[in-house]
Amino acid sequence: MLQVDRTRLRSRLEAMGDIGRDPAGGRSRLAASDADREGRERFVSWMREVGLSVRVDDLGNVYGRRAGSDEGAPAVMIGSHLDTVPQGGVFDGAMGVLTGLEVLETLNGAGVRTRYPLEVASFTNEEGARFEPSIVGSGTLAGVFDREYTLSRAARDTGATLGDELRRIGYEGERANRPGPLRAFIEYHVEQGPVLEREGLACGVVEGVVGFSWSNVVLHGQTDHAGPTPMEGRRDTMVAAGRIAASLRDLARWIDPELVATVGRLTLSPDVINAIPGRCEFGLDLRHPDQDTLARAVALAHRMVDRIAVEERLGREIEEIRFAPPVPFDPSLIDTLSRVADDLGVPYRRMVSGAGHDAEYMARLAPTAMIFAPSRAGKSHSPEEWTDWEDVYAGADVVLNAAMHLAESVS
Amino acid sequence: MLQVDRTRLRSRLEAMGDIGRDPAGGRSRLAASDADREGRERFVSWMREVGLSVRVDDLGNVYGRRAGSDEGAPAVMIGSHLDTVPQGGVFDGAMGVLTGLEVLETLNGAGVRTRYPLEVASFTNEEGARFEPSIVGSGTLAGVFDREYTLSRAARDTGATLGDELRRIGYEGERANRPGPLRAFIEYHVEQGPVLEREGLACGVVEGVVGFSWSNVVLHGQTDHAGPTPMEGRRDTMVAAGRIAASLRDLARWIDPELVATVGRLTLSPDVINAIPGRCEFGLDLRHPDQDTLARAVALAHRMVDRIAVEERLGREIEEIRFAPPVPFDPSLIDTLSRVADDLGVPYRRMVSGAGHDAEYMARLAPTAMIFAPSRAGKSHSPEEWTDWEDVYAGADVVLNAAMHLAESVS
Repeated sequence: MLQVDRTRLRSRLEAMGDIGRDPAGGRSRLAASDADREGRERFVSWMREVGLSVRVDDLGNVYGRRAGSDEGAPAVMIGSHLDTVPQGGVFDGAMGVLTGLEVLETLNGAGVRTRYPLEVASFTNEEGARFEPSIVGSGTLAGVFDREYTLSRAARDTGATLGDELRRIGYEGERANRPGPLRAFIEYHVEQGPVLEREGLACGVVEGVVGFSWSNVVLHGQTDHAGPTPMEGRRDTMVAAGRIAASLRDLARWIDPELVATVGRLTLSPDVINAIPGRCEFGLDLRHPDQDTLARAVALAHRMVDRIAVEERLGREIEEIRFAPPVPFDPSLIDTLSRVADDLGVPYRRMVSGAGHDAEYMARLAPTAMIFAPSRAGKSHSPEEWTDWEDVYAGADVVLNAAMHLAESVS
Repeated sequence: MLQVDRTRLRSRLEAMGDIGRDPAGGRSRLAASDADREGRERFVSWMREVGLSVRVDDLGNVYGRRAGSDEGAPAVMIGSHLDTVPQGGVFDGAMGVLTGLEVLETLNGAGVRTRYPLEVASFTNEEGARFEPSIVGSGTLAGVFDREYTLSRAARDTGATLGDELRRIGYEGERANRPGPLRAFIEYHVEQGPVLEREGLACGVVEGVVGFSWSNVVLHGQTDHAGPTPMEGRRDTMVAAGRIAASLRDLARWIDPELVATVGRLTLSPDVINAIPGRCEFGLDLRHPDQDTLARAVALAHRMVDRIAVEERLGREIEEIRFAPPVPFDPSLIDTLSRVADDLGVPYRRMVSGAGHDAEYMARLAPTAMIFAPSRAGKSHSPEEWTDWEDVYAGADVVLNAAMHLAESVS
């Protein structure tokens, strides 16, 4: 079995991590910013050194191609993103892109020829930190978003559109450069959760992305002075929201171990220490890999909110504001990745992703799966994001050998 | 028994309510603003029409005096405040001041002479809406605040000091105009709570002001992505704060029917729908008329917060940021007010005030008590504040006859 070049992969990840260093900590390589341009240029120059054929599509997605012996055959693609959130880490996104590059260079170095072409991809604006929504580079390829919609998104900082900013940094390419038919898509990414570290595993074979449901809840009670208003008869939205947050956790635990449910934002009104809050607005985030289980959990959570509001004599508005169904990955590709990990002796588990990734949309275009690397303490989107180098290499070796298998080495 | 002139009292309250009408609803007669000047000028011109001797002290407090047959004897004072919160109501404050005026004019009209002088008072900045803290006009008289401190408070809107603003509106008077010794102080005010309306009573005889304790709580957990982080192992400050808010209500109900406890403000961080909030800060407001009961409740609430934080594996900071002991009013004056209400056939109950008032500080200078009028639905500090006119008159009659008794009519 081949191995990636540890030193080369690490030095490229560290070099990419030097781009966009933020004085406040971490690195800020926001989509289509000057730092993103610098990151893209570094990536492109490396691809040229490796002898890949480089192209940029109309969405600013960047590809490097290693020819197959059958150039008419669909490509095996390895990809992720180079943009970061503000004060992000070194590994989120970049690890997947630079592992793709490393895989192609390792095959070059080993003189391996493959029947199917291999491509590495870096997708535009996965994070959505500067342009909302997130994951539009791959999502537009997959038909989830219109090209016009994507390119007209306005930057939070300057208001410039994504299309303008791609042109400004020199990464507005040709529609004809979008990928052709794909034989497989593999994304290697950090877990962003604590499971692999907790279980002492080097990697995860990702079977799919959970579905999620976001709801917005508004409770209407009565604002009263906290002093002269006896406890009996109050219509206190904070007490109700507190019961709801605690009950939501109970529900999530009872329904299924894989269900997660969170109240992450909450606003009281008038929000002063000596007034009973007459209005409370908060968000519910529920996620599960199975669509029916998720739908049942959302219905139950909404009923719980409704019943507690009735008990507390509150008016209530409960609205599902976003829903994304679970995305199951390709069973055959999952098996291939698992078998390769077994063969390499890499300790792994199968798992689902709780967060969205480019792979979620690429699954519409190609048989897709992901490999996860452990995240220390589950942290991401933070300067504290970390993955041990040995784990980075273990997952990269899985991607390398799986890609070689999928692309069918011919000599 | 004498009665106040219903038509005159109502028309004055309505005329005062026309000053500072806010396009957004209610009236905004904030302390030492142009609207407050207009209100003061109207009040002063009425006092002159009634033949009172008008004076303004160095804190901007305004007094009108009706001589007694013994001008060296201490005065019986009736007072409250003319300033309002933004978008406040007609009755809060103004009802007490204009009832004082009405009492003095009724005695004039009835040809009643008293041994003790009678004074009506309007105190500066009771609400604290434009200058913090609140209740500084009476509080500075009582020695709770220093004169320099009070006059150097900065306006939220312009940053000008209270002293500058009093000078600007022409209400910086002489220190020598502060009240002399007082025989009694009576404040007539709206309840700002639902008790009198709920019990169908026309007024309340107020035995004192509850003590209160404010605490600030900060919980420290771990911010994580709401997707990839399983329920087990989360350190979610919102769940903990939710449990605390619900438990606080339970505690308050169990400890004593007169205890009130409120979580009125709460801030999550990062406060986004898809992140487990790693930080939560909120306020606790506890009130009770008995100091020992209050202290025990605060200690128990703090221990509850601490235990829930430990259960949820959170760091915590719990700090009492303000404490005011209960203020009992004068038993003899309470008896006098009760007896007068009985004699008038006005249905009333004895009760404590859950909110602070000028009377709370005036109790340091004179035997003090209050009369409450019902607040519809318990509302105040809102354009929806309302008291039925019949109830306004009933309480005013109690104040009138009690004042006449205290001042000892001599003819």
